[in-house]
Amino acid sequence: MKSGARTASVLIFAAVWAPVQASAGAQDDLLAADKAWETAYSAKDLGKSVAAVDTRASLLWPNAPVVAGKEAITRAIQEDFSQGDLSWRATSAGVARSGELGYTSGSYESASGGAVTDDGKYLTIWKKEPDGWKVLFDTFNTSRPAAAK
Amino acid sequence: MKSGARTASVLIFAAVWAPVQASAGAQDDLLAADKAWETAYSAKDLGKSVAAVDTRASLLWPNAPVVAGKEAITRAIQEDFSQGDLSWRATSAGVARSGELGYTSGSYESASGGAVTDDGKYLTIWKKEPDGWKVLFDTFNTSRPAAAK
Repeated sequence: MKSGARTASVLIFAAVWAPVQASAGAQDDLLAADKAWETAYSAKDLGKSVAAVDTRASLLWPNAPVVAGKEAITRAIQEDFSQGDLSWRATSAGVARSGELGYTSGSYESASGGAVTDDGKYLTIWKKEPDGWKVLFDTFNTSRPAAAK
Repeated sequence: MKSGARTASVLIFAAVWAPVQASAGAQDDLLAADKAWETAYSAKDLGKSVAAVDTRASLLWPNAPVVAGKEAITRAIQEDFSQGDLSWRATSAGVARSGELGYTSGSYESASGGAVTDDGKYLTIWKKEPDGWKVLFDTFNTSRPAAAK
């Protein structure tokens, strides 16, 4: 009962503050996580880039099956680093009132040897863990016309 | 004050029930919305397919810029219907504890004249509106190897 009452009061506190948290503060916090991931990724920092991804995450990247599991995620990111230079910029973000689930979306650019090779848009779902926001799903696709068949 | 007190009690109620709702019930509810959209979409029911999408939604579809706004969304879906037959199946879903934000993800198949032309995976973000779950973001990409350049 004691534990139950404590849980209830924590939930009530969270509910009353959630709309505030989920507007400016939580959104800025998530945008900062997106930016930190981009900084690590564009610098090809494998450790930091992998650490930003939840161990239960799924990478839904084009031209490949779903990538899941920490080892496969590490290999996919390492492989991606070897293919060129990726950068992105979030243009929208949203966080649930409860504060533990959110998304970022925006545009990306791939380059190789300084020349832009692709551009498109992305969507990332984030989950708030005790040590911060972690990527739960990440997906993107090109905005360029399909290659002629 | 009366209105404030009412809001607070509604929030408290939502918070106490949210963990239950966000596990089995809310997830099943969202999977049912995903399935209802798939049923309308695969039947090429334009009215129902568009009605499932929030007016502020963004469609992040391959080989095209972001599609936003009800008219552009309607045109994109109509154009998609003319390109062949699409079907999909959700393999995972999640709902925030607060119950108003969720996602579904799974695999899709495109066909034309009965022959499969493409297969891949998708990610949809949903927002709970007074009249049910609505698509806020929808994106997908092929799992097939990139065409040789």
